[in-house]
Amino acid sequence: MAVPIKVETQNVAVEAVFRSWRSERATFYRRLNHISDTMGTAVTVQAMVFGNRGMDSGTGVGFTRNPSTGEPGVFGEYLANAQGEDIVAGIRTPMSISELSDQMPSVYTELLRLVEQLERHYKDTQDFEFTVEAGKLFLLQTRSAKRSALASVKIAVDMVDEALITREEAVKRVNPSSLVEMLSPQLDFTAETTEALTSGLPASPGAAVGVIAFSANRAVSMHAEGEAVILLTEETTADDIHGMDASVGFLTARGGATSHAAVVARGMGKCCITGAKGIAIDSKVGTVQIGARTFLEGDWLSLDGGSGRVFEGKLPLRPASEDHPELDRLLEWALASDTCSVRANADTPADARAAMGAGATGIGLCRTEHMFFAADRLSHVRAMILAKTPEERIAALELLLPMQQRDFEELFRTMSPLPVTIRLLDPPLHEFLPSADELEQELASARSDENWEHCITLEGIRRQVELLTEVNPMMGHRGCRLSLTYPEILHMQVRAILRAALTVKAEGMNPSPEIMVPLVASEEEMRVLTEMIHAAAADVFAGLTPAVDYKIGTMIELPRAAVCAGPISKHVSFISFGTNDLTQMTYGFSRDDARNYLDSYLEQGILKVDPFITIDQEGVGHLMEMAIKSVRLLNPSIKIGVCGEHGGDPESIEYFQSLGVDYVSCSPARLRIAQLAAAQAGGFREGHSLPAQQKDELKTGGLVPLTSQHNL
Amino acid sequence: MAVPIKVETQNVAVEAVFRSWRSERATFYRRLNHISDTMGTAVTVQAMVFGNRGMDSGTGVGFTRNPSTGEPGVFGEYLANAQGEDIVAGIRTPMSISELSDQMPSVYTELLRLVEQLERHYKDTQDFEFTVEAGKLFLLQTRSAKRSALASVKIAVDMVDEALITREEAVKRVNPSSLVEMLSPQLDFTAETTEALTSGLPASPGAAVGVIAFSANRAVSMHAEGEAVILLTEETTADDIHGMDASVGFLTARGGATSHAAVVARGMGKCCITGAKGIAIDSKVGTVQIGARTFLEGDWLSLDGGSGRVFEGKLPLRPASEDHPELDRLLEWALASDTCSVRANADTPADARAAMGAGATGIGLCRTEHMFFAADRLSHVRAMILAKTPEERIAALELLLPMQQRDFEELFRTMSPLPVTIRLLDPPLHEFLPSADELEQELASARSDENWEHCITLEGIRRQVELLTEVNPMMGHRGCRLSLTYPEILHMQVRAILRAALTVKAEGMNPSPEIMVPLVASEEEMRVLTEMIHAAAADVFAGLTPAVDYKIGTMIELPRAAVCAGPISKHVSFISFGTNDLTQMTYGFSRDDARNYLDSYLEQGILKVDPFITIDQEGVGHLMEMAIKSVRLLNPSIKIGVCGEHGGDPESIEYFQSLGVDYVSCSPARLRIAQLAAAQAGGFREGHSLPAQQKDELKTGGLVPLTSQHNL
Repeated sequence: MAVPIKVETQNVAVEAVFRSWRSERATFYRRLNHISDTMGTAVTVQAMVFGNRGMDSGTGVGFTRNPSTGEPGVFGEYLANAQGEDIVAGIRTPMSISELSDQMPSVYTELLRLVEQLERHYKDTQDFEFTVEAGKLFLLQTRSAKRSALASVKIAVDMVDEALITREEAVKRVNPSSLVEMLSPQLDFTAETTEALTSGLPASPGAAVGVIAFSANRAVSMHAEGEAVILLTEETTADDIHGMDASVGFLTARGGATSHAAVVARGMGKCCITGAKGIAIDSKVGTVQIGARTFLEGDWLSLDGGSGRVFEGKLPLRPASEDHPELDRLLEWALASDTCSVRANADTPADARAAMGAGATGIGLCRTEHMFFAADRLSHVRAMILAKTPEERIAALELLLPMQQRDFEELFRTMSPLPVTIRLLDPPLHEFLPSADELEQELASARSDENWEHCITLEGIRRQVELLTEVNPMMGHRGCRLSLTYPEILHMQVRAILRAALTVKAEGMNPSPEIMVPLVASEEEMRVLTEMIHAAAADVFAGLTPAVDYKIGTMIELPRAAVCAGPISKHVSFISFGTNDLTQMTYGFSRDDARNYLDSYLEQGILKVDPFITIDQEGVGHLMEMAIKSVRLLNPSIKIGVCGEHGGDPESIEYFQSLGVDYVSCSPARLRIAQLAAAQAGGFREGHSLPAQQKDELKTGGLVPLTSQHNL
Repeated sequence: MAVPIKVETQNVAVEAVFRSWRSERATFYRRLNHISDTMGTAVTVQAMVFGNRGMDSGTGVGFTRNPSTGEPGVFGEYLANAQGEDIVAGIRTPMSISELSDQMPSVYTELLRLVEQLERHYKDTQDFEFTVEAGKLFLLQTRSAKRSALASVKIAVDMVDEALITREEAVKRVNPSSLVEMLSPQLDFTAETTEALTSGLPASPGAAVGVIAFSANRAVSMHAEGEAVILLTEETTADDIHGMDASVGFLTARGGATSHAAVVARGMGKCCITGAKGIAIDSKVGTVQIGARTFLEGDWLSLDGGSGRVFEGKLPLRPASEDHPELDRLLEWALASDTCSVRANADTPADARAAMGAGATGIGLCRTEHMFFAADRLSHVRAMILAKTPEERIAALELLLPMQQRDFEELFRTMSPLPVTIRLLDPPLHEFLPSADELEQELASARSDENWEHCITLEGIRRQVELLTEVNPMMGHRGCRLSLTYPEILHMQVRAILRAALTVKAEGMNPSPEIMVPLVASEEEMRVLTEMIHAAAADVFAGLTPAVDYKIGTMIELPRAAVCAGPISKHVSFISFGTNDLTQMTYGFSRDDARNYLDSYLEQGILKVDPFITIDQEGVGHLMEMAIKSVRLLNPSIKIGVCGEHGGDPESIEYFQSLGVDYVSCSPARLRIAQLAAAQAGGFREGHSLPAQQKDELKTGGLVPLTSQHNL
């Protein structure tokens, strides 16, 4: 804001502005925003006007539309006989800008005319400052207005209706990351200002208010009693799924942005804070210490997933609106180009329906292990693992087959004719067995009951658990290594997938199964695995021409797979980058443990961003680029996807698009964000590789009830 | 051997020979030895001679030198009135070939003349077959003779003395891997034929015969009683070092070629078998089940480290000869070229002396953590880890400083003026704390003694152990991540190194410390760490010009470090590939767990070789090549080494040489093998980067007593 100064003082002021270019703060800001230091700055010298010359003078600030809601109409404040500082300082209470129409109708009319003209000129909502000096209006400054996500969407859509901008421009106007704010519940901080108990990694956005449960089982029973539950644990594992399902949010003492809790939370669209500092759980006593305070099971906590802060008690919660007509229209435009392929990671029919509802172009990752943990299956899975002979193992697997088949049928029915990528069993087998501690307890109680037969069984399980225990399970006996050492598992899963596809096809639909092999490191593995899958398929098709078109692909999630992607790709028709694991192995950062030093790295500026949230272009990205180049060379018709958590991160999506990836896949909760980011980045072009028949089906609405957003 | 056949039969025979080219066995052999299928074979048709035409006829086989010992003089067998099959079949007992001189002196003289001529022609020991038909000598076949390692070395050296071959040719004649056989004790299998109890990975060669100890502590006390001890455990960790030191060999139920036990065993030159199948240790009862048999502590076992087989009882052991004058001469020639830089991995002054004795050109890897485990230090290390404030941590570290300094002084005195590369602390801190089980036991006994104060201390340790426990420690809080989160540790170590160097320099020697940072992933880490090291050095030199020339370098052991090696290298004067970890992360194969599926992969042919033994050129090698190219571009004067276990593997050494590496570093026990392999590969050229003064010192014998092998 201009101040009256003498000429010599003015020179000092001009110099001060020039000097400010080299201030520490400005230098830091430029570094952060990749602005060159050599660009320089300018100084505008202008005549001063005075709003404090009496009651026919005054000053005001305003927006051409409401920056919180996006509602049209000028919105702002005016203070008579005042300078700009008086509004900012808050000593006097300003009036609403609209009241100016009574006090100085002609000034008000002129102001409206001018700012409307400015908005039309800049084609964006303006944030303006003005002064009235003795009845004459002066505009001091105008700039694009900062706004809420809600306003950002509404304004973009309204401006299309007002023919101010095109649909393409509207799509580019909204920051995809900001949608999180619209799409999830938020803590209502205006109600009270509370100090946080602790903070952790904001692993999944939104907010949750509920009572503490220390285990998945307790979460389930407390949920059954009608409680909103927050599951508070050291970390979660795959067998906590039922408890996570029963909870409104998760808080863990360990883990990072792609720890189990974080990934599941984003998949479920629930709030999650991981690796929160200073949490000490004493599950035996049933207490948790958070900082200096101690809580019991059943005590209330409030989680702010957006910032990672944890609050004591039951804070007010503003639920997410289900209804976003403007956003739906914006995304319709984003998806309309037929070049925007965003798939969803979905493990269950419910996930798949949510994905379809949000316009997913297929399922990019279905994790079959989640099906293994269901209560009716775990006993068969354990029998399979504890089998002493291949025959025993096959017998257990045959019991699992119809169950898996039913899951896949439901997925295919929901998604047909869109592709469903099913990943073969990935986690190390010990994850399906009880922990050593659990076994020890069960053994003790069996001994005190003198139930010797049960003791012997438990001893057998304990031996197996010990045998399967690994020092570094993430680099252990998992992924395709399971298929190559226990081929019966692959054989069962491939048959379940293809039998399901046959059944659904017989119902008149057109399923597109894509079988994806995890953790491949070498061409030789891929060659052998492809043969095994075809052999299992031949069993299903009884030697006849395959009645269902299935594709075989692999994840690229090991550095070696990226280096050798060319030769590996010769055996498959698609590859999908598992960027979580690829980041983990490339950096040597264990996803489950890294929080501690990653936080320190981020604080020290050694890392600019968490590489588990936004892809590391220099390292991981370089490997991806190498891989894509050699794959396109050796296998030009191949389809290339990304199914790691980065598939839902706007900055990463833009980078993947620049690498020439065909599609990204993300959790259903992030689908809208990813679609918008993908459209802004120029879109992904998976569509061209769909068989013509399937494209037709999609265009005519086909066999599947497509939602209004789905505009392919 | 030729047989009399009619012409038509002969055609069938010729065809059979041609057909044999395409036999399964021949095809497999060609694939194994990289021989092209299109090469084809030839058939020689020759007239038949008969050794069974009476007593003036006969047949024999022989060698121009003894294939077991290399002793000169024709060596072989002769059978009168016989065909070749008669010797092979073993029905009649042949006489020594030398007896022919009595029976048919002129034939014998002619035979000697002919085979000597053949040896001169082929410049190699011949394995020949001959027939005498009615007093006339016919030579049927000659080829280079297969021979023992001992013979191979003696023959090569003798042939130089006989002016048959040059020294360079002699160096190329010996297979470096075969030296293992000469340099380590072997089980004497001729004494009895025993069936193996089980087998595992031949992790460190040689043989060991001793009594079972189930823990490091028991090994120490049994060794004190004069027993030869075999340490038999699930796996070993860094705090078993004292027990490993007291044992003659190690047998583990888990782990692979670069597991802790394997690496330490090779470092100590002791026999080790890791990941042996079907071993179930019940340490509570004090028994081990190996296959179907049960053994107690104190029972005898015999290990064959060459094949990985485990035998029951006390098999006879043939000790390794200490005296190899021919090998010493051969290695003298190998090292004479001034281009062969092979360093040793050495953690202790004893290791360093062994390395100097075997002609190492420096220490390529000194692991400082081994010093932390010594009994007089562990309490300070634990105090440092359990410190609640930086001040407490610094106080504990100050007590460690003089101890570390003394270790380094001793190393510098031994190695001066050769370089000593000291790696800063690498393993995760929890390795220095007692295990959760140990703590539980100690707590129980403290509780029963009502020693409440001790209970509180132990509870504190237990909490710290829990906090430090990691799901995947190999990708955890270790390496330079420790230096960046606990800068006090780096500060102590750097001061200890440089103070030691100053002390040794004051004694008139010229130490060359090289400070190596482990597990770097990014340029930013390296930039900050370099600053930290220089700052610590400035503290030592009190702001004056550094009185000792120190170098800073980094390991390249993460895939990201390989990808970003160029930018990282801008901050250092050397890099050293840690190929163990690099292999681990690139493949996602946990070194401690991979045995199970690696064996299956090797059996199925999915892997041709164990990538932890011979470098994976396609994957890991590609990353190394990328790294070296960008490093040489951005930092041409940089020194590049390899300090993983692959630095002692001949095939890997040849590959590293082709990549343009400056030196390799391996365990002292493999030094001779590596030197020979390096010379055969064309040598490494680190020598040129030694300061001229140091080179002079080396040439004149300087301040260090150089061994006869050391010929720089």
